[in-house]
Amino acid sequence: MPQAMKWWGWGLEGIEFTHEDKPQLAGFIRERIGLDITTATAKPARFEDLGVPEPTLPEALGDALRAAVGAEHVSVDPLDRVIHARGKSIRDLIRTRRADLPRVPDAVLRPGTEDEVAAVLAAALEHDAVVIPFGGGSSISGSIEPPAEETRPVLSVDMSRLDRVLAIDPASRLARVQAGVYGPELEQQLGAQGFTMGHFPDSFTHSTLGGWIATRSSGMQSDRYGDVADITKGLRVVTPTGTLVVQPNPTMSTGPSIREMVLGSEGRLGIITEATVQVRRLPAERTILGYLFPTFAAGLAAMEEIAASEYTPSVTRVSDAPETQFSFATRKASTLLDTVQSKALQLFLKKRKGYDLEQMCLSFIGYEGSPEHVKAQRKGVGRIVGRHGGLCIGASPGVLYDQKKFDTPYIRDFLLDRGAAADVSETAMPWSKLQAVHTAVTAAGHGAFAQLGVQGYLMCHLSHSYHAGACLYFTFAFPPSPGGDMLAEYDVVKQAIQQAFVDNGATLSHHHAVGTEHAQWLQEDISAPGVRLLGALFDGTDPGRNLNPGKIV
Amino acid sequence: MPQAMKWWGWGLEGIEFTHEDKPQLAGFIRERIGLDITTATAKPARFEDLGVPEPTLPEALGDALRAAVGAEHVSVDPLDRVIHARGKSIRDLIRTRRADLPRVPDAVLRPGTEDEVAAVLAAALEHDAVVIPFGGGSSISGSIEPPAEETRPVLSVDMSRLDRVLAIDPASRLARVQAGVYGPELEQQLGAQGFTMGHFPDSFTHSTLGGWIATRSSGMQSDRYGDVADITKGLRVVTPTGTLVVQPNPTMSTGPSIREMVLGSEGRLGIITEATVQVRRLPAERTILGYLFPTFAAGLAAMEEIAASEYTPSVTRVSDAPETQFSFATRKASTLLDTVQSKALQLFLKKRKGYDLEQMCLSFIGYEGSPEHVKAQRKGVGRIVGRHGGLCIGASPGVLYDQKKFDTPYIRDFLLDRGAAADVSETAMPWSKLQAVHTAVTAAGHGAFAQLGVQGYLMCHLSHSYHAGACLYFTFAFPPSPGGDMLAEYDVVKQAIQQAFVDNGATLSHHHAVGTEHAQWLQEDISAPGVRLLGALFDGTDPGRNLNPGKIV
Repeated sequence: MPQAMKWWGWGLEGIEFTHEDKPQLAGFIRERIGLDITTATAKPARFEDLGVPEPTLPEALGDALRAAVGAEHVSVDPLDRVIHARGKSIRDLIRTRRADLPRVPDAVLRPGTEDEVAAVLAAALEHDAVVIPFGGGSSISGSIEPPAEETRPVLSVDMSRLDRVLAIDPASRLARVQAGVYGPELEQQLGAQGFTMGHFPDSFTHSTLGGWIATRSSGMQSDRYGDVADITKGLRVVTPTGTLVVQPNPTMSTGPSIREMVLGSEGRLGIITEATVQVRRLPAERTILGYLFPTFAAGLAAMEEIAASEYTPSVTRVSDAPETQFSFATRKASTLLDTVQSKALQLFLKKRKGYDLEQMCLSFIGYEGSPEHVKAQRKGVGRIVGRHGGLCIGASPGVLYDQKKFDTPYIRDFLLDRGAAADVSETAMPWSKLQAVHTAVTAAGHGAFAQLGVQGYLMCHLSHSYHAGACLYFTFAFPPSPGGDMLAEYDVVKQAIQQAFVDNGATLSHHHAVGTEHAQWLQEDISAPGVRLLGALFDGTDPGRNLNPGKIV
Repeated sequence: MPQAMKWWGWGLEGIEFTHEDKPQLAGFIRERIGLDITTATAKPARFEDLGVPEPTLPEALGDALRAAVGAEHVSVDPLDRVIHARGKSIRDLIRTRRADLPRVPDAVLRPGTEDEVAAVLAAALEHDAVVIPFGGGSSISGSIEPPAEETRPVLSVDMSRLDRVLAIDPASRLARVQAGVYGPELEQQLGAQGFTMGHFPDSFTHSTLGGWIATRSSGMQSDRYGDVADITKGLRVVTPTGTLVVQPNPTMSTGPSIREMVLGSEGRLGIITEATVQVRRLPAERTILGYLFPTFAAGLAAMEEIAASEYTPSVTRVSDAPETQFSFATRKASTLLDTVQSKALQLFLKKRKGYDLEQMCLSFIGYEGSPEHVKAQRKGVGRIVGRHGGLCIGASPGVLYDQKKFDTPYIRDFLLDRGAAADVSETAMPWSKLQAVHTAVTAAGHGAFAQLGVQGYLMCHLSHSYHAGACLYFTFAFPPSPGGDMLAEYDVVKQAIQQAFVDNGATLSHHHAVGTEHAQWLQEDISAPGVRLLGALFDGTDPGRNLNPGKIV
């Protein structure tokens, strides 16, 4: 079973972000947000100071749960309950550091079979308890936190014992997989048989298949493999009225899509126990190349042309100028050769290509498949990149990106230790709106910084492309104003960015889900009748509001 | 505005199927199902013998409807009402021929704007009338027919005045389109600006965008363009609580998908007035090539390998041996050269390729894009075809297929005139099940023919491919037993085929929807909890059951 994440932060105990091997980073951060990162000034609360309340688990419910999953899989341990109390948004990290835990689950259950999941749900409904499914706990949308005011017993159902690939149908390239499997374990089991699901979200190492489905997750190779909504073909879900079964047929004309109701349902319709997912043969070749563009607009235009073209890269990513500069600042201590190459490159870009280095943007484009396919794609995409003033800088930046892609979330704890807040907001929109949304969100973020009187940083990259549009992924960081409340100031910035999304016709989230964090924008995104459709679905399925209440709507 | 279809059959008055230019057809049909098609023996009822009941339209409702859309767009004309009374399934055609019309809409309304649609719905709800949206009337699943026992006023809302492409966003390749536009008019308007939606179902000439969305339609080039569920990005739907708006963002993580609730909703959630659809630039080159395979199994294996490959044809289709023989029998009078070529080809196939001509299967594979893309795809797909013993027979069969692809439905009326019933049933499943489903359905169909004591014909083709599975499309025909009731005997055959689908894990329908015709298999397909999710959605949205009641569940 995978190790649980730190109760107080992202990832595993003993793994932390450090600036010490990145010679330019401290100077860059001091210059851009006025923060000294060379010494930690703040620390999380100590666990013993949290004051974890005693669990409220009526005896009859406790008996029923022990009968359901076995006594050894019913945990009331305070650390276990705190780990299962919330996700890892910056709001969660700040509050946990402050020992602000108004409602902790009363028990953590670890069923080992679908029947045990059903028995847990039956016991919960019989005793009017609240049930919250728990995958890896990586949510940054508040999707797994009990409502503060909940007075009924709250049960966190940790799915991590359901961690097996049950069967692979090689002719159909479909794998039946239990929902509690973590990303690395899933890919390891598929890879042993020559397949991959190709789903690699930033949270990959600490999130599960069931969590991806329940939140409509998207991985960094979605251009080729699809979002989890595309990858998921069949489903088994324990609901209050029995096990819902969606058969893994490629498509069907059977009324409104049940499959697409479970996707994104965040535990409100039941507990996902199994999915049949589309897999692909491991590619013979896989490469991610680095590119530079003179401006973000040029990079976006190139990505749009690639999306419209006959080429099908696995990754399309382009950072804006602030994110490009941040990427360069996080480079590790370089060899003399690197420096020379880099200076030569800068000279070439300025003199021969006419780049303004302040506006330059870093891009990654990935290719997968047979050697001839990869070669043809690289060539065709290269021509498009060239037409937009772009330049291939080879495979080594891509190798680096590929290696450190799952480490990014650790930086938030590092910054919190140094008194600054950082988080992300992402959205999707048609190609024609990308530039305007980027401009509006950048203005909204900096407007919020100005309003707060803080020195903030806001950066962005295009992270997923579709024929008709793309995802923009924003990251922001700031040290709070003197005497300011970090959480309140975070809210000002987050509000400004999210409001700019919906005001410009972009969605409230491309792949981070609604939870409680984004619920206030739901009606502006999907319209009031859309919210009522969700209400009809949830109320009709769960009239007692036992299934992860308060999420989405 | 497009011309309405015949009240008694498929397509336009004056267009009919004929055997006279197909020298082998009469002999083939006589041999295979014992039917003489050289003379018509049966005719539909005369319109004046239908006994169309007087409409029941309370004065207050009539006033409200005339205020909503203008008096000239409220029709109580008997012919208009009969045309809007049902679709074009073989059940519909048989009953209409028999003057069996238990419930005809009381009025046909033709709103010209979304506001008028909203006014119609408001009037209907206020006066407790039933509202049934009407696109082209091509449904073969009973989706647009009022329940026979409905005592409230029934209103058919004909959307054909909402027939415009409103705007094209060329950078995002998205078109805002009114829902009532027919296929040819839609493609003409898009084509004038250099785009295509690429959606060409068999019903294309007589169906609308709104109808495609409401039934989860699929077109014959879906391998490249996607099903209508993929193509539809944004939506506007008039619902009882206002206009539902789904924004055309490429994907979103906003809870269960509202978009995918409207898709396939068959009027039960409201009336679709507009969609924003993905379009593509018209391809520089477009070709459909004919291929032969030694057996259906070989053809299926080739299609599976193509689906798993890096090649992306626009059409993949392979007929089983019975359908191949039927296709050859419908060839028009051939020139001497054709005959010679054909004999030479047959000799080549038998002697050099070892084909058993009775088992041989005809296939079409389509390619679109730039000349170099098409060339590379043809070459790569050709290699796969060759590995499975297949053979390219050039472009002329494909040209023929492309020309006559929308004419097939006319044959049902031709056969009814000659005393035989013919209809279709289609399904989808993972690749690993295709062969077993084909075998089981073929056995079930022939079992039904034997049970009835009729000489029936059953044939099939693979019509749409996906990475993880495909659609099988079955066509069957038989003359009823002496003294037998055609409709009752149709039910025996249809039941046997559909039951074989769900018994073998295939879906009840890939793209023909549920309506009333397939509702009995819904629970076996999507499971009882799935049916309850749909019930929650419909009951919560439409507690008075005014929106096309009785469909789907």
